[in-house]
Amino acid sequence: MSGVWGENIKLSIFGESHGRGIGIIISGLPAGLELDLDFLKKELSRRKPGSSMLSTARNEEDEFIILSGYFNGKTNGSPLSFLIENKDQKSGDYEELKETPRPGHADYPAWVKYSGFNDYRGGGHFSGRLTAPLVLAGAIAQQILAQRQIVIGSHILGIGEIREEKFDPVRINQATIKGLKASKFPVLDEAKGLLMQEKILQVKEEKDSLGGILETAVLGLPVGVGSPFFDSVESKLAHLLFAIPAVKGVEFGSGFELTKMRGSQANDQFSMQNGQVTTTTNHSGGIQGGLTNGMPLIFRTAFKPTPSIGLAQRTVHLVKKEEVEIKIKGRHDPCIVPRAVPVVEGVAALALLDLIIEKEGTGWIG
Amino acid sequence: MSGVWGENIKLSIFGESHGRGIGIIISGLPAGLELDLDFLKKELSRRKPGSSMLSTARNEEDEFIILSGYFNGKTNGSPLSFLIENKDQKSGDYEELKETPRPGHADYPAWVKYSGFNDYRGGGHFSGRLTAPLVLAGAIAQQILAQRQIVIGSHILGIGEIREEKFDPVRINQATIKGLKASKFPVLDEAKGLLMQEKILQVKEEKDSLGGILETAVLGLPVGVGSPFFDSVESKLAHLLFAIPAVKGVEFGSGFELTKMRGSQANDQFSMQNGQVTTTTNHSGGIQGGLTNGMPLIFRTAFKPTPSIGLAQRTVHLVKKEEVEIKIKGRHDPCIVPRAVPVVEGVAALALLDLIIEKEGTGWIG
Amino acid sequence: MSGVWGENIKLSIFGESHGRGIGIIISGLPAGLELDLDFLKKELSRRKPGSSMLSTARNEEDEFIILSGYFNGKTNGSPLSFLIENKDQKSGDYEELKETPRPGHADYPAWVKYSGFNDYRGGGHFSGRLTAPLVLAGAIAQQILAQRQIVIGSHILGIGEIREEKFDPVRINQATIKGLKASKFPVLDEAKGLLMQEKILQVKEEKDSLGGILETAVLGLPVGVGSPFFDSVESKLAHLLFAIPAVKGVEFGSGFELTKMRGSQANDQFSMQNGQVTTTTNHSGGIQGGLTNGMPLIFRTAFKPTPSIGLAQRTVHLVKKEEVEIKIKGRHDPCIVPRAVPVVEGVAALALLDLIIEKEGTGWIG
Amino acid sequence: MSGVWGENIKLSIFGESHGRGIGIIISGLPAGLELDLDFLKKELSRRKPGSSMLSTARNEEDEFIILSGYFNGKTNGSPLSFLIENKDQKSGDYEELKETPRPGHADYPAWVKYSGFNDYRGGGHFSGRLTAPLVLAGAIAQQILAQRQIVIGSHILGIGEIREEKFDPVRINQATIKGLKASKFPVLDEAKGLLMQEKILQVKEEKDSLGGILETAVLGLPVGVGSPFFDSVESKLAHLLFAIPAVKGVEFGSGFELTKMRGSQANDQFSMQNGQVTTTTNHSGGIQGGLTNGMPLIFRTAFKPTPSIGLAQRTVHLVKKEEVEIKIKGRHDPCIVPRAVPVVEGVAALALLDLIIEKEGTGWIG
Repeated sequence: MSGVWGENIKLSIFGESHGRGIGIIISGLPAGLELDLDFLKKELSRRKPGSSMLSTARNEEDEFIILSGYFNGKTNGSPLSFLIENKDQKSGDYEELKETPRPGHADYPAWVKYSGFNDYRGGGHFSGRLTAPLVLAGAIAQQILAQRQIVIGSHILGIGEIREEKFDPVRINQATIKGLKASKFPVLDEAKGLLMQEKILQVKEEKDSLGGILETAVLGLPVGVGSPFFDSVESKLAHLLFAIPAVKGVEFGSGFELTKMRGSQANDQFSMQNGQVTTTTNHSGGIQGGLTNGMPLIFRTAFKPTPSIGLAQRTVHLVKKEEVEIKIKGRHDPCIVPRAVPVVEGVAALALLDLIIEKEGTGWIG
Repeated sequence: MSGVWGENIKLSIFGESHGRGIGIIISGLPAGLELDLDFLKKELSRRKPGSSMLSTARNEEDEFIILSGYFNGKTNGSPLSFLIENKDQKSGDYEELKETPRPGHADYPAWVKYSGFNDYRGGGHFSGRLTAPLVLAGAIAQQILAQRQIVIGSHILGIGEIREEKFDPVRINQATIKGLKASKFPVLDEAKGLLMQEKILQVKEEKDSLGGILETAVLGLPVGVGSPFFDSVESKLAHLLFAIPAVKGVEFGSGFELTKMRGSQANDQFSMQNGQVTTTTNHSGGIQGGLTNGMPLIFRTAFKPTPSIGLAQRTVHLVKKEEVEIKIKGRHDPCIVPRAVPVVEGVAALALLDLIIEKEGTGWIG
Repeated sequence: MSGVWGENIKLSIFGESHGRGIGIIISGLPAGLELDLDFLKKELSRRKPGSSMLSTARNEEDEFIILSGYFNGKTNGSPLSFLIENKDQKSGDYEELKETPRPGHADYPAWVKYSGFNDYRGGGHFSGRLTAPLVLAGAIAQQILAQRQIVIGSHILGIGEIREEKFDPVRINQATIKGLKASKFPVLDEAKGLLMQEKILQVKEEKDSLGGILETAVLGLPVGVGSPFFDSVESKLAHLLFAIPAVKGVEFGSGFELTKMRGSQANDQFSMQNGQVTTTTNHSGGIQGGLTNGMPLIFRTAFKPTPSIGLAQRTVHLVKKEEVEIKIKGRHDPCIVPRAVPVVEGVAALALLDLIIEKEGTGWIG
Repeated sequence: MSGVWGENIKLSIFGESHGRGIGIIISGLPAGLELDLDFLKKELSRRKPGSSMLSTARNEEDEFIILSGYFNGKTNGSPLSFLIENKDQKSGDYEELKETPRPGHADYPAWVKYSGFNDYRGGGHFSGRLTAPLVLAGAIAQQILAQRQIVIGSHILGIGEIREEKFDPVRINQATIKGLKASKFPVLDEAKGLLMQEKILQVKEEKDSLGGILETAVLGLPVGVGSPFFDSVESKLAHLLFAIPAVKGVEFGSGFELTKMRGSQANDQFSMQNGQVTTTTNHSGGIQGGLTNGMPLIFRTAFKPTPSIGLAQRTVHLVKKEEVEIKIKGRHDPCIVPRAVPVVEGVAALALLDLIIEKEGTGWIG
């Protein structure tokens, strides 16, 4: 049911792709926080169709209105609300898909769950467009974490079958993060990045789509964020990461690779560096027993290919109970991975901020 | 902080490995449910050290006491509480590890988070032993789901570098699940299973440990369980799966493999089979847009190797701020993956039951 | 912190009296519910300043926009969002009160809590205006409960020192409720009602204000709604009733009068009426052990006098730390009790619906 | 359903009057808190049948076992669990009442709600005995609040028709609170207290029972605790107060008396006292707009007479559908008001602590 998330910072998400608008209510922010609106807009622009070549031709302006919680340029302590009005929607594109669910989309289970009353236009509430409000909330969380020198950055580890190197999970530093955040197509290896972009364009020509992997690092976290079991850092992060449409896998540290290691390899042994406890490896991705251990927090998020493709596909007519073929018209992203960067970083910031506030309250936020 | 989970079925977990006992409170169960105590014991015995060879020599009896919520052989509608008293603990084994955190364990971040006041004996509240109460709660959830022919089964997809075949995500059936649930070491390919067990014994001799992967299928789910965003089936399941100690990765359907596919391959196209909507492939693992689509729900859970190993390891003395070497004594599992099967199945049942009750209430549970 | 309430139906309230607008997000409603927009408007109009004589001269139009969750005249299963844009606000009236808190208002503690960053104009987020979105959510809950013949009605038991008779807690019936809901100034005794209205006009002339008591009855509830302890019907209702600005007391059944009775008087003894279990008295107000018992649910809500009065009052200048005198200008209600009727009935409906859904899910809502 | 309460401090209550035991799990306490076990026992003893004359003859020993969360005399950061085992229960007393519900008790609605599967012995989970674990949790909350000089005390304002004076809501001080907490029958006027006790004994002789009112003050609260609407101090307190069996009314400050005042009387006007903002009256009970304002927090809790009385009462046989007469045997309190003091103070402490932690986290608790 629930469009509500969070223990200390609470989010309420709403809206449909082709309705009046989409938005989010954020409860739990302290008063007096000067929102960095430029950063909010920048993060939102990272989610927007970046170039006509790499992504959808839709003109999603994503200009947001602050409905409440903001007074004289600062949060006022009451729920902070954002509305992004919908414009430039062509609902006609979808009308004919009403009873012929698009493969890979929520159309069919939503039609069953909501007895056909769901807003099927552009996926309705299931649309990837709903990640825009998440980016706004996430940008605020990032802004707050930055007050404590906690930064979050990602690179595109893979698109289709192309892979670049992973982060060095021990030595990854703030400069690298900074560089990635400034990039339109964040990769560690620019040559690999160009290959990826070429591949996206090629697949677009073929009316097909690609998935990919984002690898994300969080630096500067204190030791001891998170709790055992239900509030483990992994649980909290994975919950929000899997809330992002198209995400089908999440792993921390060496993740699935850990299953092939022995304990003597996988265990991150400790050492003292300048009076600080560190580990010489970071297979655990900075999390032990569900708690941060002061090493870089590392995770990877797997995105399936965009389900909307121009090629003919087999589906069924839900009312006539017949097999039919459809071709999805309209403008769609051949690969949403680059646009997902600020979404992943944003929800990671929200999950971590929620856990930090649990212990420390909101008094430190200024 | 929180040892509390759930919206409709609420769990409160408590206890430490070497304290008085461990347990769980389950709120939200309807009255009049006749608990299948044999099934509860059976699931608990699957989590227990199976054989002296493959796992820890500790005699964890795990006999549970029902403290409340149970009257004349049935639930009575009030919170159902289980207590497993701790016996056969050798706390002395741990005393010397107090200030020298074991690599790969929660020891170090817990020491920081709790300012040294945590119960460090055997990992305290972080101990894998706490999964026993989860198994009890999960077994009840499985019993309830079975009333609707919803069954959950797993096989050991991999141990160390050994892998067997994955489930056929379209044709996996109840008979296979039944067979797996009856097995002490559930695999699809018995030969591969023997190799895995040999490997575990070999690594045990070497005082080292192994990780592995469980693949789990849920059959019989109705279409439309789950909700978009924060209550997606993936979010809900991943939250609990990552609450299990040693889990570092979770993927649904084709998971990380999806990142290498094109949309035209990854999209599960629809067909009509005997008047039922089905998909011809099941890369999505039975979940689209966060909702079940009626196909088998498939997911994989990655376990890191048991961090407790007999080999020497580098750590630090937290007070003296010196690097030291430790050897962990005591009795430990060379591989916890086989014992994790009822834990994974149990938490999956809890997550899915919680979502089903959201829509349908508890009136159907008998 | 939290602007979020509810377990099964979740509300997120937002907005400030003089900001862009106010609103509410409602999660958890099933799809396919045809909203009775006329009823929503009617309830909202009951909350509006009813006549220029009895209440504030402000022109609060309270026209609502549905931002999401509504498609082709029905709920679509995703969060239902209402926005009421603010118009006709005269913020200038409040500017001079910024640092001189109005007695009886939230001004002073809000100034401290939010470090002066709160929106002080018209009480900001604390404004009684925020009850308009509650009325909308409550009207939907009432519409749903009416599908099961559960009706909620109130009368103005007292204004200032004037009191009329209480409900007959055993014989109160649907016809009485219907009559009260159709009345602009709902009382059981019209003569007393006129006296009350005269008194309000008189006190208005004197630039002063009055409080009062609402008595509310809920008919048609099944037996067994609610749960012991934290989800008792009293806990759930009182939580929301005390969320209404100006409410300072809540009692159920004979309430505070029960403290003077003996058990032999206070106990509602049982009898059989046409094969139904009933009680011959109803001192418990239809709630025993936190659960509904099938008798009319009766409660009373005490409202303090409107704190905004035209008379001179003593306050302090928060920055200068001096005592000063203020006169509140602007247009204010001499008595908000009549306008509170749809708010009280609405939140009661929300609390009860949330409890009913807990047991029965949302499948019955059509 | 729910036996779970709280946002930051979470409680899970369990147990039945005549089952194995009762208890509570408390999540969210920081590590390193040295529990004042003497204070816990003292509070528990205040809830116990104080003297053979004034209350039940049952020997409720209420010795508690700490199951988890406690290590070397301090909290260890994991859930803190208390178990009170049941002894000296005479279940036979209740067997004959199984299908003849006791007037004023939860028996009848519980029988319906739980389809007859509820534990009817001694009220089962509905028993007032379940307040013992609440007292334990509440005593810990009081101990924590006392670190900040926040103290909570109550007097018995009335028993039956006898009333003593209310607190002076402006001048009530810590010395008065201290005196009340040391008293077995806390009143401001000892003569009135003797009258009340005589009345209880007299009514006991008559096999009847009495109700009463507690008035409670909380001193030392900072300004700005609580939040508008759903987390108002009144909402939060009332929610827990109405969770206590037998409570039927709650009012804050001048409460229901406020409904007879004018705004000019009811508004607490401000003055400066030694550079501090205070109010010259305290009709609001220290709460404005749902937030504490620094004045003493004052509330009153109305208890109905103990429903268990020795006199003959009319009830129905639920299966035979006949009217019958019952006499309740066993040992029961003629008046539970004196024993309710530590319960009311405890839940008030829990509600306030939960709100304070929301803003400030748990770092200050030592």
